[in-house]
Formats: sequence, C-alpha cells, structure tokens
Amino acid sequence: MTREEFKLICPAPIGERDTIQMAHGGGGRLMRRLIEDVFLPAFHNPALDARHDSAVLDIGGARLAFTTDGYVVSPLFFPGGDIGRLAVFGTVNDLAMAGARPLALSAAFILEEGLPLELLRRVVASMRAAAEDAGVPLVTGDTKVVDRGKGDGVFISTAGVGLVPPGVDVRPARVRPDDAILLSGDVGRHGVAILSVRDGLRFEGAPESDCAPLAGPVGALIESGIEVHCLRDLTRGGLASALNEIAADAALSITVEETAIPVIPAVAGACEILGLDPLYVANEGRFIAFLPAAQAEKAIEVLRGHPFSAGACMIGRAASGSATVTLRGRLGGSRPLDLLSGEQLPRIC
Amino acid sequence: MTREEFKLICPAPIGERDTIQMAHGGGGRLMRRLIEDVFLPAFHNPALDARHDSAVLDIGGARLAFTTDGYVVSPLFFPGGDIGRLAVFGTVNDLAMAGARPLALSAAFILEEGLPLELLRRVVASMRAAAEDAGVPLVTGDTKVVDRGKGDGVFISTAGVGLVPPGVDVRPARVRPDDAILLSGDVGRHGVAILSVRDGLRFEGAPESDCAPLAGPVGALIESGIEVHCLRDLTRGGLASALNEIAADAALSITVEETAIPVIPAVAGACEILGLDPLYVANEGRFIAFLPAAQAEKAIEVLRGHPFSAGACMIGRAASGSATVTLRGRLGGSRPLDLLSGEQLPRIC
Repeated sequence: MTREEFKLICPAPIGERDTIQMAHGGGGRLMRRLIEDVFLPAFHNPALDARHDSAVLDIGGARLAFTTDGYVVSPLFFPGGDIGRLAVFGTVNDLAMAGARPLALSAAFILEEGLPLELLRRVVASMRAAAEDAGVPLVTGDTKVVDRGKGDGVFISTAGVGLVPPGVDVRPARVRPDDAILLSGDVGRHGVAILSVRDGLRFEGAPESDCAPLAGPVGALIESGIEVHCLRDLTRGGLASALNEIAADAALSITVEETAIPVIPAVAGACEILGLDPLYVANEGRFIAFLPAAQAEKAIEVLRGHPFSAGACMIGRAASGSATVTLRGRLGGSRPLDLLSGEQLPRIC
Repeated sequence: MTREEFKLICPAPIGERDTIQMAHGGGGRLMRRLIEDVFLPAFHNPALDARHDSAVLDIGGARLAFTTDGYVVSPLFFPGGDIGRLAVFGTVNDLAMAGARPLALSAAFILEEGLPLELLRRVVASMRAAAEDAGVPLVTGDTKVVDRGKGDGVFISTAGVGLVPPGVDVRPARVRPDDAILLSGDVGRHGVAILSVRDGLRFEGAPESDCAPLAGPVGALIESGIEVHCLRDLTRGGLASALNEIAADAALSITVEETAIPVIPAVAGACEILGLDPLYVANEGRFIAFLPAAQAEKAIEVLRGHPFSAGACMIGRAASGSATVTLRGRLGGSRPLDLLSGEQLPRIC
C-alpha cells in the first residue's frame, strides 16, 4: 500500500464511536492522534509531556532514564532476528536515545494457551543472547497466560532503566537551527525482512533485519565529547516519521538530501516491487543524531568506528521554520516528507 | 475446582513437547516450575535470583527498586475495579513489597483491532485516577495494535521504579525463626469479585474487589521504625501461595491459625458454593508482613491506622524447619497448606 492510499483510508480524526484500527499502532499520524487525544491529556506530567523515547527522572542528583515498549511482531522469527531480540534491543535503544547508559531490563510475557514450550525456550534463549550482546541484565519479570485464541503465541513488554551521564541533555527541544543530521546506516532492512516472511507475501533474497543494540555507538559519541542535541531510533514509520516527530516537537524545519540516504539494493528492489517508500519502512538498529554542524565530521568518524553504525553519514540540516520536513530529490526538486496516517506494515515490532 | 482436583490434573513436570497451559499463569506450582525451568536459568543474575517482587539495584549509593507485571484480567471491568486500576496498583504494590517508595510507572498497551475508543478512554481514565490515588505519575508508555482475534480488548503491562529508604532491607532471606506474620485484612475478595461477573457464572451479592495501593501502609510501618523483614502481596494463588513461596525462599517453616484469618461472609459463602478455598483466592490489596514478634503489637496498631490495612491482624509465626506451611484448624487439628498446581481462577489479574 502506498502512503497516498493510506492517507485516503484514514483521514478522519478520532471520534467517540470509533474503534481501534491497525493504523493506531503504526507510528504515523493516527498513532500520534491517539497519544495526543487519549493518553497525554490523562496522564499529563512533565516527564511524559517531554515526549521522548524515555522519561528522565531526577533521583537524588542522578538522572534516571525509564522507558517501556510492547512487542507483538508477527511472525515471531524472521531473517536476522525474533521477538526476543527486538524486545531487548528496542528498549535498550530507547534508553540510548535519551543519552542514557542502560542498567537493567524487565520483561512481562503474555503467553497464549497451547504455545509450545520449545518455542518459548527459543525466544527466551534469544533474549538472553541479546541481553548479553547489549551488556544489560534482565532483572525482573512476569508471566501471564491467556486462553487459546485470545493472544498470538507470545507478546513481550520490556521496560528499561538507565543513567544519563552528567552534562548530557538529549531531547527534541535541544535541536538548534543549523544542526547537522547524521544517520547511522542504510534504512529499510527490518520492515522488508519482516515482509519477506509474511504469509501470502513470502519472497526470497530479502535482507536480514538490522536489529541491533545502539547504546554502544551512542556511548562512543558522548564519550568522544560530541555535543549531542537529540537522538531518535527509526522504528515504526521509519526515517521519515522520526524526522517529522522531531520537527514537530522541536518546532523547527528539516531538510534532508535523498541522495545522501543509503538504501541497499535488496531493500530498494523489494520496496519498488511492493510499492513501498524505504524512508517510511521500519528499522530496528538505525538512529539519527542532531548535533552542531561543526562537529559533524568528527561524529561521523566516531560512529564509523563502531560496528553498529559503520555506515554513518550526514543526511541534512535543521533550520528555523515550522515543523516541516523536506526531501531534496535526486533531480534537484523538493517535496514534503509527511507523517503517514498509519504504517505501511502492521506488527513489525 | 478443589485444590485436590487440581493436583490430579497437573502433576507432571514440564516436558520438551509440552505446551503452555492456563495453569502456567496461575501463581501455583506449574508457574513456579516454568520460572525455574525456563526463565531463571536463562537470565540468571543476582537481582533476578533474589526472586523478590521487585529487583533492587544499587545506583551510586541509592537503591532502586524495579518491577513489572502484565495484566490480562477478564472481564476488563468488575465490581470494585478494572484492568486499569489493577495495572497501576499491582505494580505500585510490587514496589511497596520491596520496601520501596514508588517514584514512577510506565505502561505498554496491547490493543485489539476493533476495540471501542470509548472503552479505552474509560480504562485510561481509571488508570489516571488510580495513579493519583497512589501518588505515582505515569511517565512513559507505548501502544501496539494486534489484529482482531489475536488479542482480547486490552492487555496492559506496567513497570515501576521506586527508591528503597536507607536501612530498609525487605526480602525472604531476612525472615527469622520466630518472626510474627501479620495479615493486612480479610482475604479472597478480588477473586470472588471477578468470578461473580464471569460468563456462565454470574451471581449476585458478591463483594467488591479489595484492589488498593499498598505503599501507604508499608510506608507507615517503615516510618514508625518497625524492623520489617519481609513483605508479600497476596495476588495469584492467594495467601496460601504467598506463604509457600516465602517458606521455600527463606527455607523456614510457617504455621498459621485458621481462626485468625479473616474472611467476610460474602466471600466465605461464595467459596463454599463454588468449592473454593478462600486461602487460595487472589487478593489485590492485601499483604503479609514478617517482623520480630516483639514488635507485632505496635505494627498492628500502625497498620490499623491506615485505611488500606484497617483489618490488620497476626495470623501466625515462622520457625526453623524446612519450607513447609501448616494450617492449625478450627478444631485443633493441623494440615499442610500446599502450593497448588495451577490457580483456582484463570485471568484474575
């Protein structure tokens, strides 16, 4: 489905008689509206209103980052990963995006009656390996079981805590006009990897998911003295949605160069055949960084020295203006890069 | 179903070809086996191995309590509460059971396609009210949507962080022979309240759920200088399961007096008709405290001064011995109070 088709499907604001649609979980405009209409007004507080990937709490001088995500990916196993890896890396990455060093994770499992124990063991083994890769222990958990047909195998919600080092202050409001925008690698692998194993759509030659823990590259940036203003991982809704969220929350305009955004041939080819735009396809191991343009070259060098950000490059700049994202195309023309209504692919994480 | 029947149904250890059963989520022996066979060996670390309701982490001198729980209660609304209240109070209570003062909560929602927005708004409003009652802000969240028929309306996983005050050290290993065991109020209300609105079983005259935030009573105990050794809330599996868990983890024996355990007539009557033992029925606002017998009288006075533990009383004692729980009955005889295989009622939280 193209993004133009999606806009036609989901144009209306949330009404009182409406019901939840798949697109409400998609990372696009409908999800943003759900958050703004239902969740933010109810829970309204400074940490939540900051609308960052993690809340940051002051506790006796230290700054604690705290975040959660639910994982409902379908299928549970896909090229390059599985729900367990996503559940660990996704939450580690949300902590990293607040500039925090991850300390510990929790996991709440919702299991469907009839789930083979062997499959649960595989998911748990993958989570353990992922937690080791990320260097973060899983310290507390919970298990619930729902009746057959009331779940879908395994859902996992993880939460994470981390510490933000002194002097680090990473959030949308810190983005300055003229900041450079760095991208940590090529985009679109995760979404295409999931699509390649979806029932009714299986195809060969797809890339593996990029899912990876990002606390390493972020820590390297911070330790090297780069003044990082804002970070965001490119999950649901992909690069374009992340840019739109930050443009809106920072009240700035953003321009990115199409030719500067790496997309590997396997992703570009699959997207062309399926009618998808890779800039909107989800990633699980890529992020953007906003930082002073004068430090961009050094930051790229630091990121390229880390295996999970070896393909780092500069893709654009922030500027004063009003919450718009513009893509400067291959042929010199420009077009707005809007927030989608929904998500091109449901249940990719 | 009586507990004897349950033992007959689920006697075997977990095999490789086995599948998840409802009883694996029930708080009884099968859940304990799942945790011991699958989760603990995989994630093995000191904080997890402590097997407390919350992990306690040292961060620069401060002690951070961290916990999570998933909520899948069915139906979503029941006498005295709903999934939103449970999701807030349950996690607040897990923090309180580590002796911690709750700081902040997260919430991850897994919504089923087709869920009426109006119902989600009601759940969210209830969570907000519960967070206000508990005095704890909800600071970060996530929303996922699953296809119709792959969920059950709303599942919520909350996580929580709190600070353990200096000098407080509350965990099973701290229980001493001869400790007094205090109970904060009458037992069995929550499970009976849920049962009373289950399809195929609806009945009148049931009590309201006891669901309540317990950080207040626990804080009062600690502030009054009582040397609290261990705390446990009486959720899945009820009072009997909590006593068994602590007897096992503390490697001590426990004796409780049947006549000392309050059960209101509405609960006793429903349990008699349904063939349930109220000592195994879930509560969502009751806890037990282990503390020096010499301080029991003062502790009861402190607890009775708080609305959520106004019915506090002493129910028994710990003793050296080997992980057994004995109930001294009304007529003077004694019987072992075993861990059930499963749970008398599925999906009560």
